Amino acid sequence: MRRGTNLPAVGGFNQSVVLDLVRRAGEGISRVEIAEASGLSPQTVSNLTRRLLADGLVRESGKRIAGPGKPRTILTLDPRGGYAVGVHLDPSVVTYVLADLEGRVVLDRRVRTPRQVQPEAVVTQMAQTIGALVEASGVAPDRVLGVGIAAPGPIDRETGTVLDPPLLAGWHRVPLRAALAERLGLPVGLEKDVTAAATAELWSPEGTSHPHQAFFYYGTGVGLGVALDAEVVRGSSANAGDIGHLLVRGDGPPCACGQRGCLGESASPARMVREAADLGVLDLPARDLTLVEVDRAFTRLATAAAREDPQAMEILRRAGHDIGRALVLVANLLDIDTVVCGGPFWDRLAPVALPEVRRVVDGDPAVVTTHPVRVLETALGSDVTALGAAALVLDAVHSPRPAGLLITAP
Amino acid sequence: MRRGTNLPAVGGFNQSVVLDLVRRAGEGISRVEIAEASGLSPQTVSNLTRRLLADGLVRESGKRIAGPGKPRTILTLDPRGGYAVGVHLDPSVVTYVLADLEGRVVLDRRVRTPRQVQPEAVVTQMAQTIGALVEASGVAPDRVLGVGIAAPGPIDRETGTVLDPPLLAGWHRVPLRAALAERLGLPVGLEKDVTAAATAELWSPEGTSHPHQAFFYYGTGVGLGVALDAEVVRGSSANAGDIGHLLVRGDGPPCACGQRGCLGESASPARMVREAADLGVLDLPARDLTLVEVDRAFTRLATAAAREDPQAMEILRRAGHDIGRALVLVANLLDIDTVVCGGPFWDRLAPVALPEVRRVVDGDPAVVTTHPVRVLETALGSDVTALGAAALVLDAVHSPRPAGLLITAP
Repeated sequence: MRRGTNLPAVGGFNQSVVLDLVRRAGEGISRVEIAEASGLSPQTVSNLTRRLLADGLVRESGKRIAGPGKPRTILTLDPRGGYAVGVHLDPSVVTYVLADLEGRVVLDRRVRTPRQVQPEAVVTQMAQTIGALVEASGVAPDRVLGVGIAAPGPIDRETGTVLDPPLLAGWHRVPLRAALAERLGLPVGLEKDVTAAATAELWSPEGTSHPHQAFFYYGTGVGLGVALDAEVVRGSSANAGDIGHLLVRGDGPPCACGQRGCLGESASPARMVREAADLGVLDLPARDLTLVEVDRAFTRLATAAAREDPQAMEILRRAGHDIGRALVLVANLLDIDTVVCGGPFWDRLAPVALPEVRRVVDGDPAVVTTHPVRVLETALGSDVTALGAAALVLDAVHSPRPAGLLITAP
Repeated sequence: MRRGTNLPAVGGFNQSVVLDLVRRAGEGISRVEIAEASGLSPQTVSNLTRRLLADGLVRESGKRIAGPGKPRTILTLDPRGGYAVGVHLDPSVVTYVLADLEGRVVLDRRVRTPRQVQPEAVVTQMAQTIGALVEASGVAPDRVLGVGIAAPGPIDRETGTVLDPPLLAGWHRVPLRAALAERLGLPVGLEKDVTAAATAELWSPEGTSHPHQAFFYYGTGVGLGVALDAEVVRGSSANAGDIGHLLVRGDGPPCACGQRGCLGESASPARMVREAADLGVLDLPARDLTLVEVDRAFTRLATAAAREDPQAMEILRRAGHDIGRALVLVANLLDIDTVVCGGPFWDRLAPVALPEVRRVVDGDPAVVTTHPVRVLETALGSDVTALGAAALVLDAVHSPRPAGLLITAP
């Protein structure tokens, strides 16, 4: 059912509109400019900014002279008005960030993902790490507004449960959100990893100008976060973003699904290092590698390519080609004009693969978009997904949207 | 820039909320129920319904007793409160519909798409056909609110221009919207065909319950309209929906893009009838067929399959398989739970192909969604896309969205 709106709701909405304008203004914005940009009356803007000042979310930052008339007071966000914790649970590494109200990382921390450990113990470790992070930052704990967690899919966002991520052994229906909320006494939200990364990019200064974008996530697995009309796409169960079985070549390696040439197989670090070993570029044991071993071998593969080993370069270049093909198909379907790349393995892949990704996206005969598709790299580095998780919390404060962005518990 | 809202804007928004509730209620809804469903105060609901009654958009339809207290007056939409014309420009056939305020087709008409004719002459013919349709319907011309056109992409929605649709020979940068608006003196909107079809499904009584759905369009070409969170996806240039180069099999027929096994090639009626001729199922000239010839040959192929010709059945079944594969990939990416199929060639394909589409979508090892994906057929028949174009106009009246759905000219 569609809901109406009323004056209290409008007040909250308009307050978010004003806060969002202040945040995006960067160097500050005057009340007159807020009124012009928002369409709100000067009186309304005045009332709303008074409340934001009292709450410590906004501060006055000097005066600016703009033409005749008296100088205008400039408002900026007070980044210390509130903080959020973001946690990125990757099969290899857990990243923690503490972000301020502007979405800047105050402090981050990385911990190897526990293996063969009861989820209960993992939750305890998470809660302790979050506590230590906040303490180390010097931020007053009562200024922390909540925690966002980004996890590999599939997840159940409604109940805050991590279902059965293929690469997280032992994680079966873990009610992560409720367990963590209970330990910390804070609101906790759960989001799929690629959706969190796309959220972080939308939040970033560059992201604001690309409302139709995708985030290509390159980690232990591949995924794609999508934003359309400046809103992230979650889909019917909040598990959007799986591109592992997009076919990118008829002659690719066999995938568990029975096809050949699925992107998730052909561009996976595990398969690429195995191929490098078969060609003699890397020396690896014949047995299945652990995630840590794949991670280290991938670094050696990238190092070999940096030394211009032609076979290593060819393996990375072909992954770039396959990724480019997949991005063309997605751009055709969703009419996206910007793709941002990142993720735990991206930096090692990029030097050789990125030019090839761009070559394919610019020149593939299958491109049907009426505009160029730009392929960028995230400016947020390896914190991007954790920061997107923190943005879940900040969004609830900032964003002029009706409801429901932050699923809280209890 | 995000805009705020104010009382006049809220009034318009709330009026649309009420109108939308009345429309979706079907058998009518009381003012008390509207207040409960919308969260609006009884007084606000009373004011808004008074205005809607005065405008002739809503009418009182008897009383209903609901528990103690006095009987409640039931409000229903007055379908004759306003009308819209929808035009679906397909490379083979142009469909015109006149739809009432409830989105029901009052009258429709089909005309073979003119070939090798100046766009100017096409616009004249369209304007005449629309005039004749309205006249034949007996609807007072001043009750017609506007015209929506659905065209194959690429389009420029901002300027209302049909760019270079691959199958519409001679259509190069035709400013269809402005030209038609000038002839008719009515607001005109332009939309991509697959987006219009998805809009019509969202509007339909069934569509309301599937906010995350796709419309698989099977015509002279294939396409996919997408709706997420009950909003159609347009993308950065309103050209979303191209799935012609999705790879569905490594051993498929060659495509103009240089790959083998692109869906747009492997499941195209033109290629399928050619294959049937090669196998001796159909007798066709060796030269390239016209669109009309492909259309007729496809009917013969479907007839042969209905007679259980094994080769004809295999051709249609394989198209169903390829379509199913493509739908799996899209469902994985967008976490869609419902696909509705339709389009000018769909009815002939469906008897053999639909069971195969469903088999693949249910059972492909590449499916990663946490929920089933239902494959349905449109209940709106061959008017679906034209009706979606008409809904462009009706949406501007009905829908509680801030702005911009109908691009009008002049």
